[in-house]
Amino acid sequence: MYKCNVNRMEDKIKTFSQFGDAGHGGITRYSLSKEAEMARDEFVKRMKAIGAEIETDDLANIYATIPGSDPNAKRIVMGSHCDSVKNGGNYDGILGVMGAMEVLETVVEQNIPHKHPLTAMIFTNEEGSEFPPCMMCSGILAHDYMPERFKDNFEYNKMMASRSILDPNVTFGEKLSQFKYKGDIKNRMSPDKYKALFELHIEQGPILEDAGKDIGVVTCVLGQMIYRVKFYGFAAHCGTFPMKKRHDAFHAAAEALCWLHEEIDKLGHEDLVYTTGEVVIHPCVNTVIPDYFDFSIDVRHENPEVLDQVREILFQLPKKKWQQCDCEVVLGWNRDTVYWNKELVGYVREAVEELGISHMDINSGAGHDAQYISYMIPTTMIFVPSDKGLSHCEPEHTSVEQCTDGASVMLNAVLKLDQASE
Amino acid sequence: MYKCNVNRMEDKIKTFSQFGDAGHGGITRYSLSKEAEMARDEFVKRMKAIGAEIETDDLANIYATIPGSDPNAKRIVMGSHCDSVKNGGNYDGILGVMGAMEVLETVVEQNIPHKHPLTAMIFTNEEGSEFPPCMMCSGILAHDYMPERFKDNFEYNKMMASRSILDPNVTFGEKLSQFKYKGDIKNRMSPDKYKALFELHIEQGPILEDAGKDIGVVTCVLGQMIYRVKFYGFAAHCGTFPMKKRHDAFHAAAEALCWLHEEIDKLGHEDLVYTTGEVVIHPCVNTVIPDYFDFSIDVRHENPEVLDQVREILFQLPKKKWQQCDCEVVLGWNRDTVYWNKELVGYVREAVEELGISHMDINSGAGHDAQYISYMIPTTMIFVPSDKGLSHCEPEHTSVEQCTDGASVMLNAVLKLDQASE
Repeated sequence: MYKCNVNRMEDKIKTFSQFGDAGHGGITRYSLSKEAEMARDEFVKRMKAIGAEIETDDLANIYATIPGSDPNAKRIVMGSHCDSVKNGGNYDGILGVMGAMEVLETVVEQNIPHKHPLTAMIFTNEEGSEFPPCMMCSGILAHDYMPERFKDNFEYNKMMASRSILDPNVTFGEKLSQFKYKGDIKNRMSPDKYKALFELHIEQGPILEDAGKDIGVVTCVLGQMIYRVKFYGFAAHCGTFPMKKRHDAFHAAAEALCWLHEEIDKLGHEDLVYTTGEVVIHPCVNTVIPDYFDFSIDVRHENPEVLDQVREILFQLPKKKWQQCDCEVVLGWNRDTVYWNKELVGYVREAVEELGISHMDINSGAGHDAQYISYMIPTTMIFVPSDKGLSHCEPEHTSVEQCTDGASVMLNAVLKLDQASE
Repeated sequence: MYKCNVNRMEDKIKTFSQFGDAGHGGITRYSLSKEAEMARDEFVKRMKAIGAEIETDDLANIYATIPGSDPNAKRIVMGSHCDSVKNGGNYDGILGVMGAMEVLETVVEQNIPHKHPLTAMIFTNEEGSEFPPCMMCSGILAHDYMPERFKDNFEYNKMMASRSILDPNVTFGEKLSQFKYKGDIKNRMSPDKYKALFELHIEQGPILEDAGKDIGVVTCVLGQMIYRVKFYGFAAHCGTFPMKKRHDAFHAAAEALCWLHEEIDKLGHEDLVYTTGEVVIHPCVNTVIPDYFDFSIDVRHENPEVLDQVREILFQLPKKKWQQCDCEVVLGWNRDTVYWNKELVGYVREAVEELGISHMDINSGAGHDAQYISYMIPTTMIFVPSDKGLSHCEPEHTSVEQCTDGASVMLNAVLKLDQASE
């Protein structure tokens, strides 16, 4: 069994954490930003140092490849993203990039024999923090291989027209066209050139930590649906309008939210998660009764029947009166549960067992670039624990030893695939 | 009894509604804006046309005065503000200005004898829409006459340093210094030059309409307190973090809001009003559990003991656990109930009775410039009905007949004071 290098991994973590340092231990590094460019500069510098060949595609996805012994073999690719949410942490996404770099560095340093070319890569705009949607560029790469019902979500021209939430005058396509790392469409990941994808990632939840395990052998990405729940009241002056005549949209939403929690919790599914994270209120003035309130609800579970049960509860909302307000439930987004390639999952499980690292099977509640790529080529993921389960926030943390263990597992799983296949 | 002119009133309403027309029947006309300047231009044009003398003070408050028969008599002033909230209506504030203009126009047209000079005026920045606080310039005018505990709220240099909510680089003082109508401090309203203030205003609530009355004889402005209720949870990823371990600040706030409504409603005070109109949520991302949520609560009642009862309920919030979040209640603002001058209220009541217009006594739930001026000179207000009780919104409406009735009541009440006093 081969092992990656803790010190080299630590150096990478410290270095990449500077690009977008938000001053409280975490980063804000939007895709196509100056900070994202600095992270790519560092990636290129380190990958050139081990003799890797650098390619960029028309989406600014970037690939660093070292050759294998078989000139006709397809590439085995490892990677993730380097962009973050606002005030995010130093591990989400970038760990999968650093892990891929670490695998290539270890292969070169230890002169490990392998047939297939090995590629480390960065996907552009996974978070969609400035330009929605999430996982935009893996979605575009895999577009032609997706089920028909999802294709429209990642149609190329539509993605290029995505508007910045910071400045609605700027589109993703415009910003991309001026980005240092925009390259050639011929360099895109494709099934004729790429054999399989491995993505190392932090768990972003507390399950591994609570179970005392260092590695999660990921089996699937949970199905997800996002709805907006909207309440329409009317505005009036706060000092003059009697309570009984009010149609207060915020009060309506608060009541409905409490009712939703009660009803969904009654279903009794321990592994169901749902989140009401985004809110719009109008006019948002302390002297005016709100005439509009909406909140997002994101629901995730492996079993589509459980999602259907929650959907049924959601659609009961408009049939009830909430503080004399009208209520509407609108679909924002959904996806099916995606199962990883069983052969690749098997290699990961064998690798972690042979390395003697504690582990368990786990599913992914979060979405990842790998899930769209799985429509195109065989794909799997490896998780390492997140301290206290925190992610998408500045305290996000995983020990350097666990990060390095993750890279070692990926290295050995990749080598198993390399040996097993033509 | 003298009567104002319906057609002239209608012409003023139509004209002033153009300045800041927001396209849905209402206006957005922030103080010191181009639209606010246009409204002052119109005021000056019409007041000069009847021979009034125009003065402006250092706060851009503007005064139009016609002389009385006694050269030594103090001025009787009528007025309100011409600025609006965002997407406000065509009556809040500006009706008091148009009513004052209408009184002066009627006095001149009908050559009505009077001893005191009569002044129509516009107060700057009553709404505080761009530059908080509300009622800023009446507050500055009355500063030296206020109870000590309120003085700091309207300290001159502090007001000048108020930052724009549209552009934090701009202060009120800077914008004021470039405003066309900034004038001389010697022209400020003061007790040695002004005898009393009358303010005509829309009710902004449904009480008059529901009672079928055309005029409200206002007796006081209700006491008010504004608190912020804050919830501190922690952020985590929506797809990965188990429900039982969450500290969801939005869920906490929703539960607390429902509890507040139940507890406050149990007090059983029909005339108590409280409003939770303004919300802050962080990070407001649909894939992240909110780690912070706060809402404002504005509470109004004539009786300070009732406000104390509500305060006691509010301060129970931090002692309870809401979804494992910490809770904090912070005072934003408060004011005492302000009673109008009994002599002036009597003149208003006599005038409306003699005119034969239906009426009732009413208190004001909303704050008005008159309330601060009442610390300096005798003051009172007259209300006309608001259709459906709506205000601070574009559908705000009062019939032109009711608006004109309001002006006629003010005219005759002013003449009663004029006759009764030296």
